[in-house]
Amino acid sequence: MRHLLDVDELSTTDVEAILRSAERHRADPHGGRTVLAGQRVALLFAEPSTRTRLSFESAARALGAETFVLDPSGSSLVKRETLRDTARTLAALGMDFLVLRHHRAGAPWVVARHFAGHVVNAGDGWHAHPTQALLDLFTLERALGGGPGSPVGALGGRKVVIIGDVRHSRVARSNLWTLSSAGAEVWACGPAAWLAGWPGEQTTESLGDALSGADAVMGLRVQRERMHGAALDLDGYIARYQITEARMRLAKPGAVFLHPGPVNEGMEVTREVAGGSRSLVLEQVRNGVPVRMAVLAALAAG
Amino acid sequence: MRHLLDVDELSTTDVEAILRSAERHRADPHGGRTVLAGQRVALLFAEPSTRTRLSFESAARALGAETFVLDPSGSSLVKRETLRDTARTLAALGMDFLVLRHHRAGAPWVVARHFAGHVVNAGDGWHAHPTQALLDLFTLERALGGGPGSPVGALGGRKVVIIGDVRHSRVARSNLWTLSSAGAEVWACGPAAWLAGWPGEQTTESLGDALSGADAVMGLRVQRERMHGAALDLDGYIARYQITEARMRLAKPGAVFLHPGPVNEGMEVTREVAGGSRSLVLEQVRNGVPVRMAVLAALAAG
Amino acid sequence: MRHLLDVDELSTTDVEAILRSAERHRADPHGGRTVLAGQRVALLFAEPSTRTRLSFESAARALGAETFVLDPSGSSLVKRETLRDTARTLAALGMDFLVLRHHRAGAPWVVARHFAGHVVNAGDGWHAHPTQALLDLFTLERALGGGPGSPVGALGGRKVVIIGDVRHSRVARSNLWTLSSAGAEVWACGPAAWLAGWPGEQTTESLGDALSGADAVMGLRVQRERMHGAALDLDGYIARYQITEARMRLAKPGAVFLHPGPVNEGMEVTREVAGGSRSLVLEQVRNGVPVRMAVLAALAAG
Repeated sequence: MRHLLDVDELSTTDVEAILRSAERHRADPHGGRTVLAGQRVALLFAEPSTRTRLSFESAARALGAETFVLDPSGSSLVKRETLRDTARTLAALGMDFLVLRHHRAGAPWVVARHFAGHVVNAGDGWHAHPTQALLDLFTLERALGGGPGSPVGALGGRKVVIIGDVRHSRVARSNLWTLSSAGAEVWACGPAAWLAGWPGEQTTESLGDALSGADAVMGLRVQRERMHGAALDLDGYIARYQITEARMRLAKPGAVFLHPGPVNEGMEVTREVAGGSRSLVLEQVRNGVPVRMAVLAALAAG
Repeated sequence: MRHLLDVDELSTTDVEAILRSAERHRADPHGGRTVLAGQRVALLFAEPSTRTRLSFESAARALGAETFVLDPSGSSLVKRETLRDTARTLAALGMDFLVLRHHRAGAPWVVARHFAGHVVNAGDGWHAHPTQALLDLFTLERALGGGPGSPVGALGGRKVVIIGDVRHSRVARSNLWTLSSAGAEVWACGPAAWLAGWPGEQTTESLGDALSGADAVMGLRVQRERMHGAALDLDGYIARYQITEARMRLAKPGAVFLHPGPVNEGMEVTREVAGGSRSLVLEQVRNGVPVRMAVLAALAAG
Repeated sequence: MRHLLDVDELSTTDVEAILRSAERHRADPHGGRTVLAGQRVALLFAEPSTRTRLSFESAARALGAETFVLDPSGSSLVKRETLRDTARTLAALGMDFLVLRHHRAGAPWVVARHFAGHVVNAGDGWHAHPTQALLDLFTLERALGGGPGSPVGALGGRKVVIIGDVRHSRVARSNLWTLSSAGAEVWACGPAAWLAGWPGEQTTESLGDALSGADAVMGLRVQRERMHGAALDLDGYIARYQITEARMRLAKPGAVFLHPGPVNEGMEVTREVAGGSRSLVLEQVRNGVPVRMAVLAALAAG
């Protein structure tokens, strides 16, 4: 495996190996300090995301790599050069890894064709966000599955519901693949306009139907500016789809709540749920570092 | 001691221990390279200050820590999340220290309630700036007191005058506490509008009265936009309060000049004084690194 | 040698020593990890240039230094303080090196007068860009000269043509000196308005005359906003001066193409030439890191 561009390029064996490696890094965060010694990791976030950038930066340094943060968004490399030239220039500068967040779907594939080292997609447009999907899977398997070392498939028979604008969510798209591969039944729920074109099989406009029997509920960030496409105003969305304690009771007892962050409390979810005992939101953030350590180490190993 | 939020939370013993530790770090800047090995220090400056950020970053790395610089001012973490979520997210990302500069007074206290590690206030609004106060005390004790290892109280009988907009200065507020604790008599001097509400006992509108018998004179940056509140135009302020060589002669022979920087030469102070032989301005910058090393090490030690 | 401000301050022996050291660092990129151990390198790019900043940052860290990136362009240090104060403050903060890119010609000289450590000019206005000139020389000697360890003078009898706005190019100015010193015959070619005031002896408005017999062709970035001064519109410039495969055939067989980057494909040069087999553009980027390692190490050695 040379690059991580999307989860559908990973075999079941690859995913299993990454999750087991993540488990080891989580248990012993300081155990891998020489894995990437002398390696250079460039972090190019053409779309700002402090949270994800810090997670990758922290993971790379915990493995002994040197990290190089490129200017966020206004990067002169991005502005004045084509992606092809940026990739070639960064390789010539001796960068071994390029972690790329880009607003254009497909950008990491373009870059990968011209970068001599390893490319990690840290989110491209609405398209894919593979490390988020891997950390969500890791988090769900720890919460619902057989725990550390459990095989992929550990989510067999589990119902996972993704609620909101799945159509414009790179997280939802990447998660559909990994969660399904792990045996989960993945539902998408939201206004019809947002369900159109969703590649998964189970969809519903009814929040009640979605939550019924759910083991895990994943909220997505409501983006005001996309409300129009949903033919719903914000108040209407909140009335029908906001995830509340009362609505969580429609799910299975012990059902968990996930969200890729940052959470918009009072919009897609109440503060009670996001900060409550069922919430795995901070656990997702926590797991991001060892999962990204596992990804970087797997790429370095080839 | 878990956090450093303001100087009034420090006991005399704490302050003494920090100053002695700073003295050791100053004498041997490379002597503490393993004190924070494996620790992660997040630097979140929601209000830009390259000088203070570099000072903390330099201090943390000299102790062997990994530093993570969050985007200045426009940080997406700050913009899109509450301080509570930012604190929890950074802790979940594995940050052990959070050094915070924020324009809102009280922000570090909010953050400290939700951050699992150590919070250091690097300046909050007009409220507090504890490490600046500690480095000012350190600098003054070295200049006026018994030198290295001198006890707190080493400023007994010394007159320290703070000139300018003390009302809107976090530096002045934090300094009042530490300097008074060290035995100094602290005077505030400036237009009446700026002295209102000042918590210290000695105030005067007369620069001559303030300077008379002073051992140390501290200038504060003049902020044009706050001139209105002083019921004085800039020319009026300069005429009455600018610190000049001639006026410094009203103070004791050998009196020193301090300023938290950046200095506005030709406004609150002349270039002659700020860059002259009585000036400790660069000495303050120099002492900032070992004092911040001492603070970080003290917090790590609990 | 304490600072590197411009190439004309270097003796032939200095240049030779730097190129030989660069050759060693290129051959063994991880061989110098303790050369700058414990040293602090501040990178202040008041004019953004991700490419050059990363090159210096990578070089400094490969030598074991700690790097400190100051805010690009909007740096509060730059905005609110004079260059003199910035230099003094950074020295007081313990910085041993200051790598400075500044839009004002002469800025590095001002800074050098007040900075206790080593200043490296990473480009000042249209004036000088010494490390670019050194890496261009290194690249040309490797391509055309006697290879590793070849003496300065290895370009004797070679014709090097610089095409474009030499008048406003710090790269062209610094290159004229180093390439001439190495024995090359340096030609400048472009519209008359851009040749006025060029300090070199050989100039021509005729691209054919320039290319005839050339061993190396260096393109410069076309800046739309300076087209006016050339009394030529962009289309006119492209028609007369764009470097194409057909035009490259006017040069010697085996002639190489260089460009300081970022390349404006379809403007000053075609994509065919810039990305073709004669192009050394990426080789220049690659050589930048070992050349800058050599410069930093030479300054540290005094």
